[in-house]
Amino acid sequence: MNGISRIACARLRHKLMSAQDAAGLIPSGVTVGMSGFTGSGYPKAVPMALASRIEEAHAAGTPFNVRVWTGASTGPELDGALAKADGIELRLPYNSDPIAREKINRGEMEYLDMHLSQVAPMAWEGFLGKLDMAVIEVSGIRADGTLIPSSSVGNNKTWLDCADKVILEVNRWQNAALEGMHDIYYGTALPPHRVPIPLVRPDDRIGEPVLRCDPEKIVAIVETDSPDRNLPFAPPDANAQAIAGHLLEFFRHEVAKGRLPQSLLPIQSGVGNIANAVLSGLIDSPFDDMTAYTEVVQDGMIDLLEAGKLRMASATAFSLSPDKAAHINENMAFFRDRLILRPQEISNHPELVRRLGCIAMNGLIEADIYGNVNSTHIMGSRIQNGIGGSGDFARNGYISIFMTPSTAKQGKISAIVPQVSHVDHITQDVQVIVTEQGLADLRGLSPKKRADVIIANCAHPDYRDALEDYYNRAKIHSYGQQSPSLLGEALSWHQRFVETGTMRT
Amino acid sequence: MNGISRIACARLRHKLMSAQDAAGLIPSGVTVGMSGFTGSGYPKAVPMALASRIEEAHAAGTPFNVRVWTGASTGPELDGALAKADGIELRLPYNSDPIAREKINRGEMEYLDMHLSQVAPMAWEGFLGKLDMAVIEVSGIRADGTLIPSSSVGNNKTWLDCADKVILEVNRWQNAALEGMHDIYYGTALPPHRVPIPLVRPDDRIGEPVLRCDPEKIVAIVETDSPDRNLPFAPPDANAQAIAGHLLEFFRHEVAKGRLPQSLLPIQSGVGNIANAVLSGLIDSPFDDMTAYTEVVQDGMIDLLEAGKLRMASATAFSLSPDKAAHINENMAFFRDRLILRPQEISNHPELVRRLGCIAMNGLIEADIYGNVNSTHIMGSRIQNGIGGSGDFARNGYISIFMTPSTAKQGKISAIVPQVSHVDHITQDVQVIVTEQGLADLRGLSPKKRADVIIANCAHPDYRDALEDYYNRAKIHSYGQQSPSLLGEALSWHQRFVETGTMRT
Repeated sequence: MNGISRIACARLRHKLMSAQDAAGLIPSGVTVGMSGFTGSGYPKAVPMALASRIEEAHAAGTPFNVRVWTGASTGPELDGALAKADGIELRLPYNSDPIAREKINRGEMEYLDMHLSQVAPMAWEGFLGKLDMAVIEVSGIRADGTLIPSSSVGNNKTWLDCADKVILEVNRWQNAALEGMHDIYYGTALPPHRVPIPLVRPDDRIGEPVLRCDPEKIVAIVETDSPDRNLPFAPPDANAQAIAGHLLEFFRHEVAKGRLPQSLLPIQSGVGNIANAVLSGLIDSPFDDMTAYTEVVQDGMIDLLEAGKLRMASATAFSLSPDKAAHINENMAFFRDRLILRPQEISNHPELVRRLGCIAMNGLIEADIYGNVNSTHIMGSRIQNGIGGSGDFARNGYISIFMTPSTAKQGKISAIVPQVSHVDHITQDVQVIVTEQGLADLRGLSPKKRADVIIANCAHPDYRDALEDYYNRAKIHSYGQQSPSLLGEALSWHQRFVETGTMRT
Repeated sequence: MNGISRIACARLRHKLMSAQDAAGLIPSGVTVGMSGFTGSGYPKAVPMALASRIEEAHAAGTPFNVRVWTGASTGPELDGALAKADGIELRLPYNSDPIAREKINRGEMEYLDMHLSQVAPMAWEGFLGKLDMAVIEVSGIRADGTLIPSSSVGNNKTWLDCADKVILEVNRWQNAALEGMHDIYYGTALPPHRVPIPLVRPDDRIGEPVLRCDPEKIVAIVETDSPDRNLPFAPPDANAQAIAGHLLEFFRHEVAKGRLPQSLLPIQSGVGNIANAVLSGLIDSPFDDMTAYTEVVQDGMIDLLEAGKLRMASATAFSLSPDKAAHINENMAFFRDRLILRPQEISNHPELVRRLGCIAMNGLIEADIYGNVNSTHIMGSRIQNGIGGSGDFARNGYISIFMTPSTAKQGKISAIVPQVSHVDHITQDVQVIVTEQGLADLRGLSPKKRADVIIANCAHPDYRDALEDYYNRAKIHSYGQQSPSLLGEALSWHQRFVETGTMRT
């Protein structure tokens, strides 16, 4: 299809215009729902043009900003450009752009960090306010006007349904063979009209391959030919390999005990190098006929599919290295039937995560001795990315696993602390913690037993004595003994880091 | 049925014995699953006899204890007696008994605080270890050997399924007309065999009115005639009435805006005087044809049913005052078709809470300026009761509301603090906070806007200036500005209370 138009719907062709003209249709003060999830499928031209327009307005002394909703993270052409232009008043539900992050942490941009499964429902419910416009990347428009989704689905269905006006970016860089890979479920409703979601296996298709959009709402169509922000993965380092090793040993043990089937259960995996190392490790594992029910398809899953270990993967987006993206594009015939992309309210739906019994594997910033997890706020106040879908999967999964190296910043930060400075996952939602030091199986353990095993198995030796010392003194001086703490010291490690640049004494 | 035996199954009658003999079948070191939820339907004779046995053993210098699993809280004849006898090694998933609480907070008893929806699944999955015995109160045994449940269901189905041996207490104090009120769903399974739970309205019946039990497992049957621990509710005080008033105004506003139907959505209500005041307030509200999908049926719901405002209530247990319990017993013909009691994995199931769109209303110990909620740990370390089902409903409900007076201990404790000392509900799961001072609608607000409205609307005037002072200084000195904090001061209010007996300076 390269070279020829991806717009097969004749009655929509007259809406073709430049990105500049399309951006000109977006006034200041509106709320814009944009496509994009983990650097895939975000609009690449209109946000850049909008950023230029905003910069011109600001140069002329005219205020101009918008509220930006997406699926999750996007790319520098969207978050980076708009944040640099001081064009974002509020951003939800997730961000990983460094420029936007800096603005947020300087207090110059509002950021609403949400469970990814809840964005679409809360938008339908009217809890987030009115959605004025949508800017959605698609990989084509069919003759009947339905839209072929791009490399992510995210909240696109919801933005198209809720927005007053729609701007489409048709990106011919996206592989034409994506058509048919998506499963867009149109059975959602507001209560009291909700019904069971009829998905019982990760490979069930319950919807349609295309997105619907009222043609009257489409105010502009822009053609693009731009790659997704695909970043290379670092090869797994020794820490990542050690974490993967502990985890695979745990899975073998659970299978041996009859608590997991030989094909495991549907895998959910956060994004990043450690997650990728775990996936890579599964290639040499004894587990077969595995499935994934997750947010994003990463390099490691592609390898597992090709190795015949993974039967299929369901997600809402790709998050691939450039090499792997090219590899998929060249072998789409093989992959198309083994991958399903769904709206994020379905990929992350608590009902489905609980029913399928996902094995939830997510990263963390810090955990405390009782197994509370901080996934978002460095030193309690500085946002890193956001909670993303980790809460959707950690609370509802069959087993909730969190993984991290035991230290950060060349050992100046311990990932295991007396008390986390911010909580995203409460102890009840954290069943296993793994560091390169070892694995803590916290199932069935009361808080003090959790502390014993977390300190012994997960903490770095450089910090273990200090944790034990804190914990032992807490067991003497604490106000109560359910979860012993020393209020004057609980956050002192963080304070020391902020003041001296290290948590070490 | 009073006066005559409730044991209609002839082949089981020979298992009748005294509570002492039955308790004699429970050896030290075992795990016992007992019935009981919120002071209803717990066994009343065998645990007392077991406590005596334990005390005798201890007097003789012989170690003796058991691990006790229940539905939720029970009564003094169970938790109180066994804790007093130092007979409980570990207790899960919820406790409100003062003697047990004291033991836990002195570090003399292990307590595992769990989401109530997750207890049964984790037991099936083998994550909690082996269940040796079950001691279950029923209101009768039918001729076919099936069991008529008592005034709570809780985890009884699971304990009967999982335990090696079963002791039944047949309590003739329970109203014989309870028969038919229960709905025991036997469609649960372990993944990958889970299917949608076919409940789409609170009044749907999806199971059977009775519990099944393999007769071979029944080792003893004990007859009792003992009342549940029904405690009187205090009449609503001014604070409770003010909270109820703010909340009803909020509901009226949401209905006017079209975000809630005129019949609202299924109500979930925590237990206690404030919750009861809110329910009472609904009697004079404009809302009709309401339903409840909740954990426990309280006095206020009975009033609403009789007033014709509430169409029906689904729960897992009763939690009534003695007067109201007597009233129900006398008018069972009216109530039986309007009340359904289900297993707690169904009453609290995330799939169902999300589908039905429950209005979640729960109490709290403290909330911080960003809307994180502590429901369990006083001053961060001392357990009060437990998280119960609040997490099941708060994360999955249509709107998650938390209610509390703005101060406790005659004003010496502020319920709104700079940072909570323990987190049970993260900001994403807290959409509305109500105190007698006012209501904070946090939907769609980023952290700093949440702080503005929580401090302004919810904090007690005696603490408002100190909160504003903290928050303003945090906005200058914090490490990051997403959720500004002062690490050295964040927990200082709690420390001051522990050291001086008040949070006031």
